[in-house]
Amino acid sequence: MYYPKELEALINYYAKLPGIGEKSAERLAIATMEFNEEEINEFSETLKNAKKNLGRCAICGHLTSDEICPICSEETRNHNLICVVEDFRNVFAFEKSGKFKGTYHVLNGLISPIDDIGPDDINLSTLINRIDKLENPEIILALKPTIEGEATTMYIKKILEGKNVTISRLAYGIPIGAEIDYLDNITIEKALEDRKKISE
Amino acid sequence: MYYPKELEALINYYAKLPGIGEKSAERLAIATMEFNEEEINEFSETLKNAKKNLGRCAICGHLTSDEICPICSEETRNHNLICVVEDFRNVFAFEKSGKFKGTYHVLNGLISPIDDIGPDDINLSTLINRIDKLENPEIILALKPTIEGEATTMYIKKILEGKNVTISRLAYGIPIGAEIDYLDNITIEKALEDRKKISE
Repeated sequence: MYYPKELEALINYYAKLPGIGEKSAERLAIATMEFNEEEINEFSETLKNAKKNLGRCAICGHLTSDEICPICSEETRNHNLICVVEDFRNVFAFEKSGKFKGTYHVLNGLISPIDDIGPDDINLSTLINRIDKLENPEIILALKPTIEGEATTMYIKKILEGKNVTISRLAYGIPIGAEIDYLDNITIEKALEDRKKISE
Repeated sequence: MYYPKELEALINYYAKLPGIGEKSAERLAIATMEFNEEEINEFSETLKNAKKNLGRCAICGHLTSDEICPICSEETRNHNLICVVEDFRNVFAFEKSGKFKGTYHVLNGLISPIDDIGPDDINLSTLINRIDKLENPEIILALKPTIEGEATTMYIKKILEGKNVTISRLAYGIPIGAEIDYLDNITIEKALEDRKKISE
């Protein structure tokens, strides 16, 4: 082989990561070699610590190193408002926007009969428990507009029927900054359907 | 912050790598969390080993974990033919093609007055020593066609004057598979200058 074995081993690790092909893995491995020894040791410890300490919040299922995540622990948030998301990456996206002051519930998946993922395979029973303990909660279903997302949205809507809970979903429409020419047909259709009156 | 601190630390390490922005670093860090514990420990050791064991070949300057790299140690290669390259990444590129059976010399840089890099700052004296010990060697200057590459090529050509050495450089021209419409002017000019007669 053309790579020294130590470098090849490192390239192979980088190549396991999503979106990293052989060429990128080579580039990353070589760049890593330019870290100084202290940085390398820290990087190495960081990897182990992250794996060892990170788990899921007992309330909402978000990624955390605590029993209860900082969001569920924050008293000033509206704990009666729960934004239901597919995975914890979505929580980061909402938190970055800084506009949501409720809490989350991370399903850790979507219902997908094709992939043999049913309602019991996602983090749903804890959501029902949470809702049952709240008075007049609102849940926002923030699931992606795909078959799986819609199926999960519909399923949750159905099992919550008869409970004292307000259910909404995210608005569909034109993303800010988009060129209308490049939008797909379904987005245009949804944006028309959900059009908002702005005259008096 | 929206990230758990262990994840944030890992994101920060990935973000130090070239071409990895915040979004990619987040994606890589999260994917790393999906490695199992054994893989994480191995990744961690791999990082340390690569840093600790990799150095430069005493003959050619290529990246290696040995005193003399496997290429310089390979007896069946033509040790009278030396391909001079800017850095060890280029050696990998040549070795992948599998078409070169000589040896290499890694300059680890190019002469660049603007960046205050002179002939003494690159791995040149060892090249002269190597050449002086060979009989009728050929060196191929495989440096990139930029100002720095040309300056280094010219400098090496000059210091080797009067020595019994054949000097060549890589051919310039149209890369295989390229659309001629998209070629830059200088490549077209070089390809015309170096045109090859194919009639009898």
